Amino acid sequence: MTSEFDLICIGSGPSGLRAAIQASKLGKKVAIIEKYKFVGGICLHAGTIPSKTFREAILSKVSKNKKIHRYAGYSFQKFFKRVQKIVNDEVNVNNDQLSRNGIKVIYGEASFKNKNEIIIKSGKDTREIKSEFFLISVGTQSNKPNYYNKNNPHVILSDDIFSLKTIPNSISIIGCGVIGIEYASMFSKLGIKVTLIDGRHRPLEFLDSEIVDELIYQMRKSGVEFKLGEKVKDVLLDKKGEMNIRIDLECGKKIHSQLAITCVGRVGYTSNLNLESINVNLDSRGRIIVNHDFQTSCPNVYSAGDVIGFPSLAATSFEQGRLVALNIFNKNYHKMSANFPVGVYSVPEVSMVGETEQSLTKNKIPYEIGIARYKEISRGIILGDINGLLKMIIHRETKKILGVHIVGESATELIHIGQCVMELDGDLNYFLKSVFNYPTLAECYKVAALDADNKLKI
Amino acid sequence: MTSEFDLICIGSGPSGLRAAIQASKLGKKVAIIEKYKFVGGICLHAGTIPSKTFREAILSKVSKNKKIHRYAGYSFQKFFKRVQKIVNDEVNVNNDQLSRNGIKVIYGEASFKNKNEIIIKSGKDTREIKSEFFLISVGTQSNKPNYYNKNNPHVILSDDIFSLKTIPNSISIIGCGVIGIEYASMFSKLGIKVTLIDGRHRPLEFLDSEIVDELIYQMRKSGVEFKLGEKVKDVLLDKKGEMNIRIDLECGKKIHSQLAITCVGRVGYTSNLNLESINVNLDSRGRIIVNHDFQTSCPNVYSAGDVIGFPSLAATSFEQGRLVALNIFNKNYHKMSANFPVGVYSVPEVSMVGETEQSLTKNKIPYEIGIARYKEISRGIILGDINGLLKMIIHRETKKILGVHIVGESATELIHIGQCVMELDGDLNYFLKSVFNYPTLAECYKVAALDADNKLKI
Repeated sequence: MTSEFDLICIGSGPSGLRAAIQASKLGKKVAIIEKYKFVGGICLHAGTIPSKTFREAILSKVSKNKKIHRYAGYSFQKFFKRVQKIVNDEVNVNNDQLSRNGIKVIYGEASFKNKNEIIIKSGKDTREIKSEFFLISVGTQSNKPNYYNKNNPHVILSDDIFSLKTIPNSISIIGCGVIGIEYASMFSKLGIKVTLIDGRHRPLEFLDSEIVDELIYQMRKSGVEFKLGEKVKDVLLDKKGEMNIRIDLECGKKIHSQLAITCVGRVGYTSNLNLESINVNLDSRGRIIVNHDFQTSCPNVYSAGDVIGFPSLAATSFEQGRLVALNIFNKNYHKMSANFPVGVYSVPEVSMVGETEQSLTKNKIPYEIGIARYKEISRGIILGDINGLLKMIIHRETKKILGVHIVGESATELIHIGQCVMELDGDLNYFLKSVFNYPTLAECYKVAALDADNKLKI
Repeated sequence: MTSEFDLICIGSGPSGLRAAIQASKLGKKVAIIEKYKFVGGICLHAGTIPSKTFREAILSKVSKNKKIHRYAGYSFQKFFKRVQKIVNDEVNVNNDQLSRNGIKVIYGEASFKNKNEIIIKSGKDTREIKSEFFLISVGTQSNKPNYYNKNNPHVILSDDIFSLKTIPNSISIIGCGVIGIEYASMFSKLGIKVTLIDGRHRPLEFLDSEIVDELIYQMRKSGVEFKLGEKVKDVLLDKKGEMNIRIDLECGKKIHSQLAITCVGRVGYTSNLNLESINVNLDSRGRIIVNHDFQTSCPNVYSAGDVIGFPSLAATSFEQGRLVALNIFNKNYHKMSANFPVGVYSVPEVSMVGETEQSLTKNKIPYEIGIARYKEISRGIILGDINGLLKMIIHRETKKILGVHIVGESATELIHIGQCVMELDGDLNYFLKSVFNYPTLAECYKVAALDADNKLKI
C-alpha cells in the first residue's frame, strides 16, 4: 500500500503542530486535519493564550498595591479585544510556519476508516486519505455536568468564558482544578465576588501542599470564598435582583450568583473519531491511553497533548509532539525529561519542578528544605510582592536538588533556573557559589540555599 | 601583638557587609567602620536600591503600551517617598543581620596608623583599634569635573539625584556609562527631554555590540537624544525661560536644559584612609589595585567592591566580600566564577553572561549565534514587549554556550538560566531538549537554540 502521507496529525494544537513541523523538517510528507476554521486548538482559541492575555490585561489594569477596583458590568469585550488581536497574530504565525514547512492543512472532521485511512467530512464533502502514521492530537473539551443546559446563558462552560458580553458582579465557579483556580483568582482581582466550589477537600493535589496553602491564603485575601468538600446537587435559574443562579449544595447550603462557570474536568474530544474500528483504548473520560513513547494500542497510531491526560500543558504538549515525530522516524529520539516545569497562571502564579514534600515523604527519601520569602529579597520589596515564596527541596545526603516550588510574581519564569540545575545534575553548591544579578527575584535561590545549608549543618 | 579583632571592614556596603557576616559565621571577631550614620553604603543610599526603586515607580506609572505621560514639574519626592521607605527597610534588615551575627558597628571615619591599626574619628572623639586583617570596602564617589560647583543647584552629581525637589522638563546627562544610561532611559520614560553626551563614540563597550545598538534604538524611540563623540568644553548658568543651563561642546554646539547631571566616572573613596603609610597601591582614579584573591600590596589588607573597579556591581561585591572572608580564614575558598551575570537596569533592561561576539572574534574562537525576538514568543506578544531580544552564542565545534545577551523585560532574571547551563557545562542540547513553561519569556532560549541549531547544520 502506498500512502499519500507519512504522517497525519488530527488536530492542530501544540502537539499536532509541533509533530507536523518536526516530521516535515525530517523530509516527511505531512498533513494536519483541523475541524475548526483556524489552526491552533484549544490552547490558542479558548485556553492558554486567551486566558493568559486576559490575565495580563487584568494585572495591568489592577495595580498590585492599590485598592481593588470594581469592574462589574464592564464590557468583557474590552478585555477581549486585545485577546482577539493576539489570537489572530498567533494564528498567522502558525499558518506561516505550516506553509513554510510545506505542511498541508485540511479543514474538516476526521474519523478512522481503518488503521491507515481516515475519512474527512467538511460540509457536504467527504474525502479519504491514507497515511502510514497518525497522531491523534484532538485535545479535550469541558465536561458537561447534568445541570448544564446550552440554553441557559447564566451557567457556562470554562471553554465559553470568552463569549461573555459583560463582567458579572458575582461568579460561582464549580471545580477547583487548574482552570477553576486560574479564573477564580483573575476575576477576584477585578473586584468580582467569586465562590469556588469543589467536592474535594484540597485543590491542586499535584502541587506542594505548603504552596497550595499560600495560594489559597492569598486568594482568600483577594476575596475568593472557598467551599471545599462540598458537592453540588443542582444549579437552578433563580432570579433575585442582580442574581440569576442558585446553586444547591448537598449539605443544604444555597449559593446565589449572577453567573456560574463549570470547570469540572475535561473529556477527550474522541467520540467522533471511530476509534473502536482500530482498537485504540480509551479511559473512562474518553482520553487515549498511550505507552511511554506516546503509542496507542494501535501501533501506527500515536497520541499526544491534552487528550492523553496529565500534565495537559501546552509546554509539555509541544515537546510530546516533537518526540512523537522523532520516535516514528527514528531520529535522535530521547525520552521526555522528568524535570519539566508545571505552571499555574493564577494570581499569584505558581510553578514547580521535581518532587513535592509529600511525594518524598511517601517514598521515604530524606530531604531538607530551604525557603526564601520575597519580602527578604530587595527585588521583592521593590516590586511590593511581599507574599511570594520559593522553596527548594534538597537531598540530605547527596545535596542534589529534588524539587523547587514557587508562588509569586514571575514564578513560571524563575522555575527554569532550578529545572536547569536539576537536569544538569548540579547541587546545593551551585546556588551557594553563584552570583545573581542584584536586585532580582532569582536571588531567592541563593537565600533558600543558604537557609537549607544552615539546616543541613545541624 | 594581640588584636581586638580578627577582621575589620572599612565601609558597610555589599562587600563589607557580606565579608563581616561570613567571617563572623566562621567564629571570628569582626567590626565594621561606617563613616555615615547608616550602614549600607552607596548601594543602599544613592545607588542600586534607590535607582531601582525609582525605576519600578516609573514603570508602574507609565504603562508600557500607552502614550508617554509628561511628569515635568511633578514632585520628585513623591517618587522618592517609596524609595525612602524601602531604603529604611533595608537598613533595618542589615542592622538585624549585623547584630544577629555579633558584628560590632563603629560609626566614624577610619585612617590607617599602621598595617594593624586604624584611627577612627567621630566628631571630636578619636580612638584606635587593632585588627589582624582589614578589608577596605569604602566604595567610590562621583568624579567631579572642573565645571562642577556645589553652589550651582542646576548641575548635580549622579550621587545627588535623590535630593532633587521636582522633576525637570529637560535634562542633559554627561557621561554614557551604566549610570548615565540608566537614568537617561528612566527620565525619558517620564516624558522628560533627555540629552546624553559622551566623548566616546560608543557607550557600554563591555556589552555585546548588537545589544547596545538595540538599546540605543529603543532609547531614541523614547526620546533620548545621543550626542556621542562630543567633548564638553564647559557647563554654564544661562537662564532662558525654563532653561537654566547651557552646555558648550568642543565642536561649538550648545545644548540648553533645565538640569545637568554629571556621570563622568567614579573615583575611589580612598583619599582620607592614609593608605600611603601602609603602601597600598592605587590606580590613577584612586581605586585600589588587588590580586586575584582581592589582596592589596599590603598582605594583611584586602579590598573588594566598587573601590577595586570592574565590574562594580552590588551582586559581584557581595560575592567578593564572602570570598575574602573565606580566603583569609582558609575555609572552602574558591575563585570567583567567570560566569557572573552583568545587569544594566536601563529601560529596556539589559543583561549578559560570558563572552560577546566582539571578544570571541578578537580571540579567534569560532562561534554561531541563535537569536529569539520577544515578538516571536507568545509571552512577548502578550506583554507587548515586541522589541526584546535574546542572543545565544555557541561554540561551533563543542556546542558549548559561550555567552548569552538579553535586552528587554526581565533580562536580569532570565540571564540566570543561561548562566546555569554555562556554569554546569551544559550545551546547546540542553535548550533543544528542555520543556519551558508556556507562555514565558524563557522560551526565548528554546527559540534561539533552534535558530542556532539550524545554522550549525548548514
